[in-house]
Amino acid sequence: MTTPTERIILGIDPGTAVMGFGVLAVELGKVRLLEAGAIRFRAAEDHALKLRTIFLETTRIIERHKPDELAIEAQFFGKNVQSMLKLGRAQGVAIAAALHRELAVTEYAPKRVKQSITGNGNASKEQVAAMLLSILALPALPSSTDATDAVAVALCHHFAQGAVPRSGRSKLGGKGGWGAFVRNNPDRVK
Amino acid sequence: MTTPTERIILGIDPGTAVMGFGVLAVELGKVRLLEAGAIRFRAAEDHALKLRTIFLETTRIIERHKPDELAIEAQFFGKNVQSMLKLGRAQGVAIAAALHRELAVTEYAPKRVKQSITGNGNASKEQVAAMLLSILALPALPSSTDATDAVAVALCHHFAQGAVPRSGRSKLGGKGGWGAFVRNNPDRVK
Repeated sequence: MTTPTERIILGIDPGTAVMGFGVLAVELGKVRLLEAGAIRFRAAEDHALKLRTIFLETTRIIERHKPDELAIEAQFFGKNVQSMLKLGRAQGVAIAAALHRELAVTEYAPKRVKQSITGNGNASKEQVAAMLLSILALPALPSSTDATDAVAVALCHHFAQGAVPRSGRSKLGGKGGWGAFVRNNPDRVK
Repeated sequence: MTTPTERIILGIDPGTAVMGFGVLAVELGKVRLLEAGAIRFRAAEDHALKLRTIFLETTRIIERHKPDELAIEAQFFGKNVQSMLKLGRAQGVAIAAALHRELAVTEYAPKRVKQSITGNGNASKEQVAAMLLSILALPALPSSTDATDAVAVALCHHFAQGAVPRSGRSKLGGKGGWGAFVRNNPDRVK
């Protein structure tokens, strides 16, 4: 049940092999996990079909939970330009699905997520998982580490609310951001 | 005026500094230019606002002309992983805007576009421009080379129709493609 004071945060860790997602509900500072999961792509699957799947699945998750915000884990380094182009496209379609529903989108670097959850930007996956179990009072985490990463970025976003933006966090706009953009750039918008 | 036999092709050259677009109408093998233009981003503009602008502008162009297909020029090589990630995101949001409207999306490498228009994959921008003027029977081309590039990829897509897919062309799906994917992968779709 969603109450008027509840805020829903969608966390996404988009990749070209797996897309992890996690949905948190926040009410009066209390956080609970609504859903977490991972959508896997076959290695041989066409890159284009992956993009389509990411767009459709992200849209479905948004329709299912009606989140207010999207927090996205954004890798900035990769092995080569080709893999980064594909990763960028995967992030782009997930971001577009959120922009279409007017969600505010904020991206977080992986180090920032670890720092936020454990207090240590170089924490291991196991340390992050242990903190998530404790904070969310869960008996177990999703079996997929990608789903866990997505829950972690959603929780990182919750912790970042009201805080002064720090390095590693980059606000991607949303209703207010776009409104401000339109007001400040009337010549840029038809 | 759009007639029932008319087919509309949208060409896009998405970048992180400028997004070029061109819209062609094809009827009985005759091609005419409906609109071409470029949307420029300020160098200092937030990457996120650029993505939002690309998504909204692509959606507006699609609503204005109701194209059947999107042809997109896709660079596969870049200077560094950071710039490729940003380029990938720009391509991703443009592709998502098209997928949302169920357009078939096909991407073409720049060499393939030049080859298709001029017969030479290493043709200069001037050679491509001269051929576009002639084929589209235009008195002048758009002042922006990005708009011209977008018109070129749309025309390349027209020429590719009915032809056997060649190297440099990559079909990204569309209504038929997605339908086939759903039929062939019932376990992958909720």
